Amino acid sequence: MATTASVSPAVDGDGSGPAARDFALGLDIGGTKLAAGVVDATGRVHSFALEPSRGEEGPEAVLARLFDLGTRAVAESGLAWSDIGRVGIGCGGPLDVARGVVLSPPHLPGWVDVPVTALAEQAYGRPAVLDNDGTAAAAAEHRYGAGTGTRNLVYLTISTGVGGGIVIDGRLYRGSMGNGGELGHVTTDCNGRRCHGCGRLGCLEAYVSGTSIAERAQEALAERGRDSMLAAIDEPTAADVAAAARAGDALAQEVWDGTTAALACGLTSIVNLFEPELVVLGGGVTRSGDQLLEPVRQAVGTTAMSPAGRSAGIVLSALGEQVGVVGAAAIAFEQVSSKPAA
Amino acid sequence: MATTASVSPAVDGDGSGPAARDFALGLDIGGTKLAAGVVDATGRVHSFALEPSRGEEGPEAVLARLFDLGTRAVAESGLAWSDIGRVGIGCGGPLDVARGVVLSPPHLPGWVDVPVTALAEQAYGRPAVLDNDGTAAAAAEHRYGAGTGTRNLVYLTISTGVGGGIVIDGRLYRGSMGNGGELGHVTTDCNGRRCHGCGRLGCLEAYVSGTSIAERAQEALAERGRDSMLAAIDEPTAADVAAAARAGDALAQEVWDGTTAALACGLTSIVNLFEPELVVLGGGVTRSGDQLLEPVRQAVGTTAMSPAGRSAGIVLSALGEQVGVVGAAAIAFEQVSSKPAA
Repeated sequence: MATTASVSPAVDGDGSGPAARDFALGLDIGGTKLAAGVVDATGRVHSFALEPSRGEEGPEAVLARLFDLGTRAVAESGLAWSDIGRVGIGCGGPLDVARGVVLSPPHLPGWVDVPVTALAEQAYGRPAVLDNDGTAAAAAEHRYGAGTGTRNLVYLTISTGVGGGIVIDGRLYRGSMGNGGELGHVTTDCNGRRCHGCGRLGCLEAYVSGTSIAERAQEALAERGRDSMLAAIDEPTAADVAAAARAGDALAQEVWDGTTAALACGLTSIVNLFEPELVVLGGGVTRSGDQLLEPVRQAVGTTAMSPAGRSAGIVLSALGEQVGVVGAAAIAFEQVSSKPAA
Repeated sequence: MATTASVSPAVDGDGSGPAARDFALGLDIGGTKLAAGVVDATGRVHSFALEPSRGEEGPEAVLARLFDLGTRAVAESGLAWSDIGRVGIGCGGPLDVARGVVLSPPHLPGWVDVPVTALAEQAYGRPAVLDNDGTAAAAAEHRYGAGTGTRNLVYLTISTGVGGGIVIDGRLYRGSMGNGGELGHVTTDCNGRRCHGCGRLGCLEAYVSGTSIAERAQEALAERGRDSMLAAIDEPTAADVAAAARAGDALAQEVWDGTTAALACGLTSIVNLFEPELVVLGGGVTRSGDQLLEPVRQAVGTTAMSPAGRSAGIVLSALGEQVGVVGAAAIAFEQVSSKPAA
């Protein structure tokens, strides 16, 4: 079932600029949730709707629900369809960004070569663009969120999977073919856990994603968990692990310490490579706040290579669960005008 | 003792452009060797001189020898001092690039806050610039070497230590303060060997640098090496390990396999982040050629995340041991004209 939230349409302060009257429909195809929202070019969110992804239903069914969700978001924004000039779509990679095709993302098993942009243009009758959801979120935080004013920013999302985006010298970095910025797939331990996302051993994602935290908790419980309060929960989630650790549960704390150590290790590699001014963390796992941030800040500050890296800020997303649709809209504002004719 | 090589000065093909008549003195402060050379703006090397670094003598003595080496390189180029408009200096980080100061690089123990640029300007009476040696080498390969024509390139140097440089959308990426691109300090195993360079556990450098390969061979010999041909060598080097592995020595092959596996692991992280068109490998360890390249190409091609990453080229430096001075000169050509007055 969809949850929606809407606010009344923006009215420009001075009525002059086109910015706040330029609206995009942002769509986000996550591993757990679909999201849709109407966003204006100042980053203001005029409506926001969520529903479960259920990716296993396959691309046809899921995209039909996504496009319905988008239609509902437009209705709830109070705007007319004629106000919505463009559609932006964020999705986990790998993608063929130029052709607007979802190739075979690990968070959507069974999706192969899905022409999402073409289908969205057909559904809505207006230009659409597709980009990596991490890249889109980085754009959102850089333009409208925690990273406003920075030139070099790394955004890391920690939820079902781990992804991210990179802003270099004020511009989004996409890699040669639009699939760079796979921040979840830097190694922390090449002899470590198998990564569900890419199949390699020891990726950051294999330790810090919500899925991986829950799995590591299950494994610890199976081994020696009789005394843990997590044993009373049927399938403890990452949030349960965080809560139990806060409540003093030793096993949960151990799992949590493994999480923050792996995150610090991966972020130190990333900081050593990019020397960003700011690292922004988003995604469901970051709802744990300082419980995650503080040990990670301390470890990266101690171990990163350069003086600037050691002092790089590590902060939480300012846009929270709306970052995906704001990012998708930001990409639409950036790209649609320069898009070649189909 | 210095080894030098010189060629006769270039004559412009058409005598019109300033490029081939624009000369820089390039200086490279490595952990093992100092290098100096005169290079023109087309990348042609007019003289080249090398001598051992002996960094333990301290900055004053080493820089006196480096500046002498530069003077000798100018003499051997056949050019007049009046032809040499600028000086470029490459050195391992961390550096304060804006102020031209070497902060405290791990490959030069005891060097702290050495104002190399100011000292070079004093010695030579012309503008000088300092940059990370890996960044300089990336500039050299991108402009004049293996990466000509690419827009996204990663250069990795594997010698005494491991460093590198990054070209993004055709421009050098330096990080927020000039110390990004520390490619040797991505993690391969967060529970692994201590990195001499940065003190963390399990950096790429802790496995694949010449120093680390030799150390791992020593450790394997101490443990179980009675049958290895390396046991007959007093202090086997990385080159000895490579040669023994080629000759069928099982222990040496094991050490070598550990090297290529770690390099593939680190490069896969880097390729997942940057999705470059090309990875260029330089430094002494790469003299092993296909013995290093082939297993690394195969592993990265199998494990990198994106289709483009899997097909990214991995090639050897085209500039070989001269990459440092060509890079330092490339940086001088890029920066001196835009340098603010001191």
